[in-house]
This record gives sequence, C-alpha cells and structure tokens, in this order.
Amino acid sequence: MTQTKILLDESEIPRQWYNVVADLPTPPAPPLGPDGNPLDPSAMSAIFCDPIIEQEVSAQRWIDIPDEVREIYGQWRPTPMFRAHRLEKALNTPAKIYYKYEGVSAAGSHKLNSAVAQAYYNRQAGITRLTTETGAGQWGSSLSLAGQMFGIDVRVYMVKVSYGQKPFRRSMMQTWGGEVLASPTDQTEVGRRILAKDPECQGSLGIAISEAVEEAVSRADTKYSLGSVLNHVLLHQTVIGLEAKKQFEKVGDYPDMIFAPCGGGSNFAGAAFPFFADVAAGGKPVRMVAVEPSSCPSLTRGHYAYDFGDSEGFTPLTLMYTLGHDFMPPGIHAGGLRYHGASALVSQMYQEGLIEAVAVPQVATFEAGVTFARAEGIIPAPESNHAIRATIDEALRCRESGEQKTLFLNLSGHGHFDMASYDRYLGGQLEDYEYPQQAIEEALTRLPQVAMAE
Amino acid sequence: MTQTKILLDESEIPRQWYNVVADLPTPPAPPLGPDGNPLDPSAMSAIFCDPIIEQEVSAQRWIDIPDEVREIYGQWRPTPMFRAHRLEKALNTPAKIYYKYEGVSAAGSHKLNSAVAQAYYNRQAGITRLTTETGAGQWGSSLSLAGQMFGIDVRVYMVKVSYGQKPFRRSMMQTWGGEVLASPTDQTEVGRRILAKDPECQGSLGIAISEAVEEAVSRADTKYSLGSVLNHVLLHQTVIGLEAKKQFEKVGDYPDMIFAPCGGGSNFAGAAFPFFADVAAGGKPVRMVAVEPSSCPSLTRGHYAYDFGDSEGFTPLTLMYTLGHDFMPPGIHAGGLRYHGASALVSQMYQEGLIEAVAVPQVATFEAGVTFARAEGIIPAPESNHAIRATIDEALRCRESGEQKTLFLNLSGHGHFDMASYDRYLGGQLEDYEYPQQAIEEALTRLPQVAMAE
Repeated sequence: MTQTKILLDESEIPRQWYNVVADLPTPPAPPLGPDGNPLDPSAMSAIFCDPIIEQEVSAQRWIDIPDEVREIYGQWRPTPMFRAHRLEKALNTPAKIYYKYEGVSAAGSHKLNSAVAQAYYNRQAGITRLTTETGAGQWGSSLSLAGQMFGIDVRVYMVKVSYGQKPFRRSMMQTWGGEVLASPTDQTEVGRRILAKDPECQGSLGIAISEAVEEAVSRADTKYSLGSVLNHVLLHQTVIGLEAKKQFEKVGDYPDMIFAPCGGGSNFAGAAFPFFADVAAGGKPVRMVAVEPSSCPSLTRGHYAYDFGDSEGFTPLTLMYTLGHDFMPPGIHAGGLRYHGASALVSQMYQEGLIEAVAVPQVATFEAGVTFARAEGIIPAPESNHAIRATIDEALRCRESGEQKTLFLNLSGHGHFDMASYDRYLGGQLEDYEYPQQAIEEALTRLPQVAMAE
Repeated sequence: MTQTKILLDESEIPRQWYNVVADLPTPPAPPLGPDGNPLDPSAMSAIFCDPIIEQEVSAQRWIDIPDEVREIYGQWRPTPMFRAHRLEKALNTPAKIYYKYEGVSAAGSHKLNSAVAQAYYNRQAGITRLTTETGAGQWGSSLSLAGQMFGIDVRVYMVKVSYGQKPFRRSMMQTWGGEVLASPTDQTEVGRRILAKDPECQGSLGIAISEAVEEAVSRADTKYSLGSVLNHVLLHQTVIGLEAKKQFEKVGDYPDMIFAPCGGGSNFAGAAFPFFADVAAGGKPVRMVAVEPSSCPSLTRGHYAYDFGDSEGFTPLTLMYTLGHDFMPPGIHAGGLRYHGASALVSQMYQEGLIEAVAVPQVATFEAGVTFARAEGIIPAPESNHAIRATIDEALRCRESGEQKTLFLNLSGHGHFDMASYDRYLGGQLEDYEYPQQAIEEALTRLPQVAMAE
C-alpha cells in the first residue's frame, strides 16, 4: 500500500528556531527611526516586550524554543507532510509533489506557530493585553486562541472588507475570547481621521496595523503583536521547514523547488528558510519561490526602498519591496496577501538573487485550489492556492520536459472560512485584477524622504 | 514534556471492520417488508448494490477493509487521539479525559469513513451515480468527496433548514463536484406532495431520505447511500474505536466510560462497538453512553417499535427506538442529530441494557463546546458538543468523588461550518427545547400497524 502521510513524533518538534540572518551573505539593512537614523532597539519597547525585541534584532543562528511553547505546539505539531499521489496522477506529471499541511492547527493555519510564541513571551514579560490586526482572519484567530491559552486579553482590528466577507472568522475569535473590531474604527485617532475622510473606507492591513499600534502605545498594560513581516515572526515559522526537512529525510527525498504563498513573508520564510540553511552550508541548490497575487505584486513589481510598515507611518522605516505604505489593495479573496510590502528579510534575499518570486492571477489560483481539493480532499485557503498554482504550473512543465523534479509546497491553511470565495469562483463571478503600472509609478513619488535618498 | 497526541502509523490503519452483530447475546430482529414479513435481502437491491447488502445482513465478526479504501483512509487516518490535559486542568478534575479527533478528515467529520467505503463498493458494482440526504451537511460533504474520488456523480438532498443555516456546507459539496438541492424539492413526487401541503416546509432527514430513495428507485444508473442508521454504516465507522483501542494500549490506559453523540447511531457505534467486543470477550466492563439532544430524545424517551426509516414509508420497517417516522424536529443546531430514530443495533443494545443513553439540552452543549475550545483549541461540531457535555458532567462528578476515571469521547468533527450557531450561543440567543410528552404519546398512535402488533 502506498504511504500518503509522512508523520513525526511529538518528540521531534524542533527544539530551536532557525534565524536566517546568521546565514545571509550581507547583514540586513537596519530599520530607521523617524529621524532617518538607525533605530535603537529600545525605541521598540513601547509596542513590544523585551524578549520579542531581542529576537527581532538577533543574529544568532539557533534560538531555543521554550518548553511551554513546544508543549502547546504538541496539540497540532509536528504537522503532517503528504505525498500528493492523487494530484500527481490527476496532472499526469512525473514530478513528485509533497505538501506540508499547516491547516491542522485549531486556528486553521500556520499563524498559530508565532501566536503561541508571542503570547508566551508577552505573558513572561507580565503583559495582560495585546492588540493586533488581521486581514483574512487567520492571524486574529491565532492570537485570540494563543491569548486565551496564556490568560492574555486580545483585541483584534479586522480589515473591514474581510470582516464583511468572513463573519465566521469573527465568531471564531470570539469563541476563543477575542474582541474583534471592524477597522477603520472610531476607537483610535487614526481610525476617526480616516473615517472622516472616507466613511465607506473598507480598510487595509496598513490601517489596521496603525490602529493597533496607536492603542498599544497609549496603554501601559498593552503591547502590540504582528502576524508577519518582522524578523521574529519569520523566525517562529521556521518550525515548518525544520520539520519538513526531517520528513524528507524519512522518505529519502529532498526538494528541487519550494513554493509558498507570500504576503508579509512569514508563510514563505517558514517553509523555505530552513532549506536555505542547507544551501548556505554548501548543500544542494534548491529553488525557493515566493508566490504572490498579481493584484498585490510587491516583490515582482514593487520598489526596493525604505518604507513604513503601516499606512500612517507609526512604524520604523524598513528596507523592503513595497507598493507604497498608503497602498489600498483591491478586494481580492486572499486577504492574507493584501499587504503593501514584503518582509525585510525576504526582500533582501530576493534582491540578492537568493530566492525567486512569481505573481499569479486570482482566478487561476482558485482553479488550482479546486483541482487540489478534488484530488487530495483538503480545501485550501485562498492564500495557499497561490503556492498550489505555481506548483501545478511547474508540475505541468515537468510533464512536458519529462523531468522528475521533487516539488514541495506549503499548504499553509484550510479554506473552511473562505467558502464564499469558492462560491464566487464556482459561479464564474471571480475576476482578475492586474495591479496598474501607473499606481506603481505614483507610489514611488510618495515613498518617505529617506527612501529617495537611498 | 507532557505528551498530548497519541499517534499511530499509517500501517496501523485497521485491516478489518468489526461487526457487533457477531457478539450480540440475541440475534437482531429482522427488518420487515411492506407486508409485515421479514424482508428478503434482494428486496434492497433497488436502492443498494450487492456488496453493501451483503454487509448489511452479515453476522461475520470481522470484515476485510479493501486495500483501496485503506489507501484513501491514509489521507487522514489513523486519526489522532488526544489526552485533554488542558481541559482536565480547567475542570480541576482527577478524571483522565481522552478524545479521538475525527475532524482531521478533509470533510471535517467521521462521516468520510463510511462515504469512502460506500463509494468504493458502488463503483465496484458499476454504479456511476448516488443520491443521498444530508442534515448538518457532514454526510453530504463526505459523500461528495468520496464520489469525486471514485468518479461517481453525487446528488445530495439537503434538509432545507440546514441549507439555509449552513450555505458553506453547500459550497463545500459543490467544490468537490456534488450537486445539492434544498429538500423538500420539486424534483420528486414526495417533495412535490409535501410542498403542496406546506410550501414553507423546512424539511427533515426523514423527508430528504424519502426523496433520495424515490429517485434511486426510479433510475437504473443510480443507487442510494445512507450516512448512518444502517448496519453497514455502523460497521464502517468501527475504524474509530479500533484505532482508539491501539492508542489506549500505547499509553497503557483503558476507558472506564465512553461518550459519543447519538443521532442515527454511526458516530456512537464507531467509537463504542469495538470496546464492546472486549466486554463480550469477558474483558473489563466499560460503560458506553450514547448522548442525544433532549429535543430529539429517541433512545431516552422514544418507543421501541417497528417503524420506517423515512417520513414517507419507502424503507423497510426496522425495530428501533423511534419518535415516529413523521417526526418533525425542532430547528436545533446539531443538525446531524435531528433524526426520528436510532439505528436497530444501537436500539437493541440499549434495550438489552448493554449500553446507556442520556439526553442533554442544547444551550448546555454549546457551553461545553466553548469550554472545550478555550482549553483544547479545537472548536467542536455541535453534534460533538453533546458528547463533550456528558464527559464534562462526568469529570465534574469525579471532582466531587475524587475518582480517577478514564473518560473517552468521540470528537466526531469540527465546528467550522457551525459558527452561526456559536454566534447565537455567544449572543445569548440560543434556546433549549424539551421535546413535549404529548408528541411522544401521539406518535405511538401513528406507528405502523405491525408495531402495534409487537
């Protein structure tokens, strides 16, 4: 009988996270403060607790995972890796396709990996309240659950368009005790200002981040928590790739190419960075492909420049690929990928040619998702459909060339809260949206001053 | 570090299903035909294929699971068993709580166990089209997916109240290629007759079964598939308990009590029957508790009598606990438990005192579900919340008595498509509904003639 799942024992949950900074050929460019000078880490302490700041700026290759975090990871980790036999057959490809399935977490995606770690460190630091933003709802769900586990109150600013599209993500957060607001809200200065200008504003991740940061800065008992982009979040996600490496070892295989969705970057980093560790150590070259929506093409079409992480300019300036921090994304259905920039680390690696990126249109991602669901059963999150699309495209190329490549994709979550999007796809109502070149050029003129000086 | 999950390897998927008929102290009462005489198995061939009929009437203790079915089981089986450390701590109970999590299947519940088997046998028999009914949508989802895997077209008659409450279950079935109709429909004689009498009829499982059976009988290429109640469905679900026994063995424990939701009965049978095999062989007594809603209390308050399985009287007569085949259930949120009867095997075992049953009210089940979700992460299906309620009640009794009982519950599915119900609970809008005594007494007068003669 053909084996489908590649499982690890609970004792094989990684004991350390992998920090890619230690293996980069050049040190990362420092984040800059409002004055344009490199930011002193202590400047972040208004919004982050000390252990988080320490991880954010660390260049140490391996960072211990606390026992308490590993114990909670044990509720769903190690996650299974699957050999996609049925999909391979459906595609009639000689390529071998493997996927790591992060949707088995109670929150339904990889996001819980970092949420648990962040809740743990904040609790250690005596914090009892966290604010955060959420787009698709995967991060807000994850932090609500992690907060509940550590006795931390969580307030989630949920991008209004997602709040409307995905009411049951809200219910999920509330079931776990989270408080959920549709952003922009009237609870913050930023929100009120934006609503005054445009009462119908459907929100963006950038705006939601601004609101959550504003509140954290203004309350002593409250810190802020981010679900992607930052170094420490990427760090926490490396459990995915570290486990995958052990799983490949178990079956005596190794990927030629890795595909992962890329919005902020933690999804991609989690799957790919641990394999980069091998490459950096002189191992077999592996092509790592970040897959983004063609409607939010920060890596493939954005500017490599210093920019803010939020819409209002509350955050430090980071050198990254960006569409401009005031980017107002189209209402595409992969809410988790609707972000104006890519993480500094992913951006740097892309800029230095260490990784690849590709942009795919929306309708084609759902077509890939339905093909996947009918072959493998699991209905993927719209974010994950991006990686599936790129993997299927490569598998079809292999069918032409006859190459028996080993392809690995990060199936970062399930689509149980995205069925309205599948409905639209199945009903032929879904549309593609190519981000206009003019908007990209205009963004260049609105980047912060320091960026222009680069 | 405390271990949370108890896993089995894919090679440990059971090779045989367990048929409880072989271990019953008395042989099951035969189903009766419309003439009141025992039914000849061949009479079932208008709606079921031969291998299914063979299993339905078999008294053989072990029945081989085909390799092809085991291979597909491998996409999610063996399912994990969890020790509920965090729930135990939250309840401050000395009881040990274990749960088997069937929600890891792509369809989100245990139902896929039988759907795959039924699709396989029908395909073997050359059938290319199946009709079925669904209440909560778990069964319809499962059969749509299983049909897709074996190239069988699936038409699902979905109880109208669920169709409205759970639109995304419909999308899920369609994603897997299933065709979904809100029952009663205008596609069948039965449906048209019912709609003529009551155009607003919200449907029932009994009506949906009638429609699906009517269509299967009238088309040569089409058979019917049932998601619970019948012996062969209960048989397929025994993989749950068989795996659980191996998992208990791994940790050197054994349940004192087993709790599972009970509607048609396959959920309960799947978890409990394999342990009954031990009891029948002279093993340690284990209390097996079927948990039903107090709004549909077929076991605890129904009549033990011959009755039809559907509203219109198309099915054979079966000796079972019933609230009357024309029972019109209240719109409670555990749609999978809204059935007028319990399976013949579960009914017989209850009548003979081999198993126990308890009825729990709706609001208390959601309260238990939220307690569970906040401790263990997973948001359970409303059906599963019934078992959780009864388990928590027992764990709290253990807190009083100091007993260190080992409790085992079947967490039969996740609640990702039931968040509207959680919303209502969290908003204080959910109500209890005690099935009225008068309705039970009246049902007695409408049972089929042969039942009166018993």
